[in-house]
Amino acid sequence: MFVSKNLEVNEKGHLTIAGNDAVSLAREYGTPVYVMDEELIRENCRKFSESFASYYDGNGMTLYASKAFSCKEIYRIVDQEGMGADVVSLGELYTALSAGFPAEKIYFHGNNKSREELEYALSHDIGCIVVDNLEELGQLDLLAGQMGKRPGIMFRIKPGIDAHTHDFIRTGQIDSKFGLALETGEAMTVLKRASAMEHLYLKGVHCHIGSQIFDLEPFKAAAEVMLRLIAQLKEETGIEVEQLNLGGGFGIKYTLEDQPVSYEKYMKEVSVTVNEVVRELGLNRPFILIEPGRSIVGPAGTTLYTVGAVKEIPGIRTYVSVDGGMTDNPRYALYQAKYDMALANKAGEEKNTVVTVAGKCCESGDLLGESIPLQRAEAGDVLAVFATGAYNYSMASRYNRTPVPPVVMVKDGESRLIVKRETLEDLTRNDL
Amino acid sequence: MFVSKNLEVNEKGHLTIAGNDAVSLAREYGTPVYVMDEELIRENCRKFSESFASYYDGNGMTLYASKAFSCKEIYRIVDQEGMGADVVSLGELYTALSAGFPAEKIYFHGNNKSREELEYALSHDIGCIVVDNLEELGQLDLLAGQMGKRPGIMFRIKPGIDAHTHDFIRTGQIDSKFGLALETGEAMTVLKRASAMEHLYLKGVHCHIGSQIFDLEPFKAAAEVMLRLIAQLKEETGIEVEQLNLGGGFGIKYTLEDQPVSYEKYMKEVSVTVNEVVRELGLNRPFILIEPGRSIVGPAGTTLYTVGAVKEIPGIRTYVSVDGGMTDNPRYALYQAKYDMALANKAGEEKNTVVTVAGKCCESGDLLGESIPLQRAEAGDVLAVFATGAYNYSMASRYNRTPVPPVVMVKDGESRLIVKRETLEDLTRNDL
Repeated sequence: MFVSKNLEVNEKGHLTIAGNDAVSLAREYGTPVYVMDEELIRENCRKFSESFASYYDGNGMTLYASKAFSCKEIYRIVDQEGMGADVVSLGELYTALSAGFPAEKIYFHGNNKSREELEYALSHDIGCIVVDNLEELGQLDLLAGQMGKRPGIMFRIKPGIDAHTHDFIRTGQIDSKFGLALETGEAMTVLKRASAMEHLYLKGVHCHIGSQIFDLEPFKAAAEVMLRLIAQLKEETGIEVEQLNLGGGFGIKYTLEDQPVSYEKYMKEVSVTVNEVVRELGLNRPFILIEPGRSIVGPAGTTLYTVGAVKEIPGIRTYVSVDGGMTDNPRYALYQAKYDMALANKAGEEKNTVVTVAGKCCESGDLLGESIPLQRAEAGDVLAVFATGAYNYSMASRYNRTPVPPVVMVKDGESRLIVKRETLEDLTRNDL
Repeated sequence: MFVSKNLEVNEKGHLTIAGNDAVSLAREYGTPVYVMDEELIRENCRKFSESFASYYDGNGMTLYASKAFSCKEIYRIVDQEGMGADVVSLGELYTALSAGFPAEKIYFHGNNKSREELEYALSHDIGCIVVDNLEELGQLDLLAGQMGKRPGIMFRIKPGIDAHTHDFIRTGQIDSKFGLALETGEAMTVLKRASAMEHLYLKGVHCHIGSQIFDLEPFKAAAEVMLRLIAQLKEETGIEVEQLNLGGGFGIKYTLEDQPVSYEKYMKEVSVTVNEVVRELGLNRPFILIEPGRSIVGPAGTTLYTVGAVKEIPGIRTYVSVDGGMTDNPRYALYQAKYDMALANKAGEEKNTVVTVAGKCCESGDLLGESIPLQRAEAGDVLAVFATGAYNYSMASRYNRTPVPPVVMVKDGESRLIVKRETLEDLTRNDL
């Protein structure tokens, strides 16, 4: 019935999220509010680590891709689950370290890291810097030398495989702002250069082939391509890097039609590929890293709104306006992303209308979805939008000077605030 | 040479903005930074008020549509210029009042105002509430009665005219989340209801026909349609409302090809239409309001970035990465909006490359523009993106935990900070 787990309907006909009445949550914390299911987050974390244990002798680590949802509490949770984290900015790195996340388990990505970011990362001895390009390599070696450090690095490689949702192509992905192209020889040239750098320790290679992927084949193809790169580097330099970072991109269920592959199946099949190719090439089995973000937190999030104006335009459509919108979830405005929704106070009723859900911004494009099946909406209803745990809070803006909503963590019928709602004072804090 | 005014090249070959060396501004305030030209803002304000004086006997008021750029200082400036302001949220209203903006000159818009917003507006006795729908009307009358107030209201009407950039259509615009449809009779029904409400004072009617409009015809057509509505209301109720709010939507020059109409011409022609129609219908000349936002602040803004990685992908394209991107300007990601750009430290040189300008976010879609003519870029260059004064700072997000850049006001070779840069502490301020 619902797109995510731990969602049920109670005796009042209200939606419950991990045992919490969603209508009560809306009343207690106000709306809009992001609600995150802690058990589901932890369960998703464990699926990855358990599949490493089951199929790859535990010879790997899951890094939480924190750009999906970054705040102090999420770093504490993934740390408790034994995971590492990937960060893509000084802000994420600062947040992780502020939450006490172990620096040595942090991988730092980015196509255009600033000197300030690199210095900060070096001074905190983070686990690995994922170098994007030759200029960054030179700058990092220089800085590391000056600071008396020798950081671990890996390189972001464009493997020539571009996974779309339901298929993948083997060329063309060199047109990206990220990383070094494999097929042009650029990657090998830079890797060889890196392997000889005095102040840097070349730990491995990284690739990322796309987002919201529903097919295993491109992951397996990418693993094979990257292992062949490792073998070639070994052949040409004698250096066999230890780590293979296969990135993220695992699809999640946004709508009832979506059919993501299981993480278990992913690790099972990718392990088979890795074992075969490693044997063929005479390599050691690398330490594998994967970087799920959306698939950890996405399904665990539900956003609650209060319905305001309901505007039926005869013969055209019905607009159901809520008290949030593109400010807290810009994914429809950006990508026409589809979400499943329900009225939390009428969750037991049939969805017998089809509506356009509009936000409150003064902008026509401020919609959360079109052609949305929904129970009949009235002012005061509580709208729940599901699978909003990733790229909602993290992408929130203050357009129209809208305060960013709070995040509430729920577990076993209890709830707690993990990010406070912005205040009006917050909005003008930096205004002079 | 440049798309906006007050931009020049100095003896060093550097871009200057209102007499300030842009490279020095970048060094002093850091990058990314939004730079706003105070004189140009004031000049744009005056064009509107002067055209009211010249062509309509000053019988009107310009309201600054503050969603385009909202911070305390801009409200002070438009107040000094004798203008009113329109706000679309509690956050904007709070900011305006915090800056000492006169409440009686504030018009409050929104398709889904909350009870909290309406109460706040009533308690501060703002000038006018632009009511969107019947439910809001009922709620507002009730609240006003409870609070012992009698606020001025106007209605947002869908005039059945939808202006696109270079043409307009007379139907279809009833498919909008905003306002009441004219052609279905809905508008007249609700206006009649409003005119009889005990605690509300019906001041006028409002319409808004689109954004970034380059043609005068749709504005004139909308004015006529709205006057006929006023006449019909007078005929049916005996009440002749005093104010006609024609909204905004005036196009600005984003690229050298754009040809906006002059504000002077707008007022001249719209006044002729109004005078003619008023005479024909036997109406008093209404007090006219217009709501420019983009056209006041858009051309006055320039964003400065520092170039980092430059990635030439042979036969495909060159990516020039900067230290900002969709976080400070989401308009390319949202609308593929076009901007004119130049390297501030090479502004006197020829633009002999064509590049893709990429941001630093960990997202492929994080681009500021494609096929951009630019001087040959290297790491360390300062990139200037022009006409970013509207819908950039106001739409900024903290995606990837990126701090929102500061805003610097420039005038006569001097500069001052008007919005401070967000700090790392700001990013985690609400994290528990």
